[in-house]
Amino acid sequence: MYKVITIGREFGSGGREFGKRLAAELGYAYYDAEIIKAIAERSDLAEEYVSQIVENHIVSYYPISVANTFTTITSDPVFDASKSVFAIQKEILVEAAEKSPCVIVGRCSDYILRDYNPLRIFIHADPAARVERCRSRLKEGEKMDDKTIEKNINSIDKSRAKYYRFYTGKDWGDRRNYDMCINTAKLGIKNAVNMVSAMIKAQAD
Amino acid sequence: MYKVITIGREFGSGGREFGKRLAAELGYAYYDAEIIKAIAERSDLAEEYVSQIVENHIVSYYPISVANTFTTITSDPVFDASKSVFAIQKEILVEAAEKSPCVIVGRCSDYILRDYNPLRIFIHADPAARVERCRSRLKEGEKMDDKTIEKNINSIDKSRAKYYRFYTGKDWGDRRNYDMCINTAKLGIKNAVNMVSAMIKAQAD
Repeated sequence: MYKVITIGREFGSGGREFGKRLAAELGYAYYDAEIIKAIAERSDLAEEYVSQIVENHIVSYYPISVANTFTTITSDPVFDASKSVFAIQKEILVEAAEKSPCVIVGRCSDYILRDYNPLRIFIHADPAARVERCRSRLKEGEKMDDKTIEKNINSIDKSRAKYYRFYTGKDWGDRRNYDMCINTAKLGIKNAVNMVSAMIKAQAD
Repeated sequence: MYKVITIGREFGSGGREFGKRLAAELGYAYYDAEIIKAIAERSDLAEEYVSQIVENHIVSYYPISVANTFTTITSDPVFDASKSVFAIQKEILVEAAEKSPCVIVGRCSDYILRDYNPLRIFIHADPAARVERCRSRLKEGEKMDDKTIEKNINSIDKSRAKYYRFYTGKDWGDRRNYDMCINTAKLGIKNAVNMVSAMIKAQAD
């Protein structure tokens, strides 16, 4: 019944792990970094550049002031690249949804694929749990105090919210835009995956 | 593992039906209107009066202007009754949580019972689905157009949000205050009950 599952997630809440495990459990395709590679190939842009646009959510370059001027609007190359990357990303997501049942993490996929009636999940967790998760995943030798980790988490989430708002006109993480919001700090990732996959399998019967 | 389950809900989303079914499925006690009766008994207030305070969320009688005056603060009887009803309600909820596993709908129970580590669920649905549910439940002979139904729904939810904010200091329906938010328009009530009860039973093993 649910052939397309989209996952929005707070940074550090384990949304990516949830998505991967859910896809494995259901035998669905899983899309995340593969999409960046595909965009790079199709756009002839370097993979690092696409990644920077997609991951850092560059939307802030838009010259808001132009509406107030009478001068010819000169094109902003970064904004243009961002727009075209978004357009190609959309093509690729639609192709993925057409191809086979899939789980897609991030990328406004809940909105882009709205015609495919996706099961829209949002994964979140309490701030302390997210800091702990990020701390436990620091690379060997990497040092970062909890305050800095928390600052980074908030900064990434702020950028995700801005990106989502820009392309969808809606509020990122607002329950009304999702079918399920799950607090992994309370439920645990594996437990939450078991719960959702069992529900999806039962619906498919 | 989850002995106390609290359910917040948008009006018309089927939160009460979800709660009842979940309690039946798990063999948990279910509290809703019983609480009003218990408050009435303990407070010596009439059941109808308690119901009016609890259901209509009378918190707006508070004389905000008093802070700006030098006169002696005279007591507001409606506000006092509301405060005392809330205090008695808290006692009763705590007793319920101590007594046996239970499902409690509304009444800021997620906040009041926070020391009992409740599984905090919020039930919502798309506006159109809520209007439809309310329309299908109009009493025989009762007539109401969809616009009026929607207006009533919004008015009740606004009052719930205000009540929740007043007593908890938090935003009603904000995913961050819950462990799961479920859109019953997408998942269906019975399906959602099966999903959550299976998860809770698996945790109890």
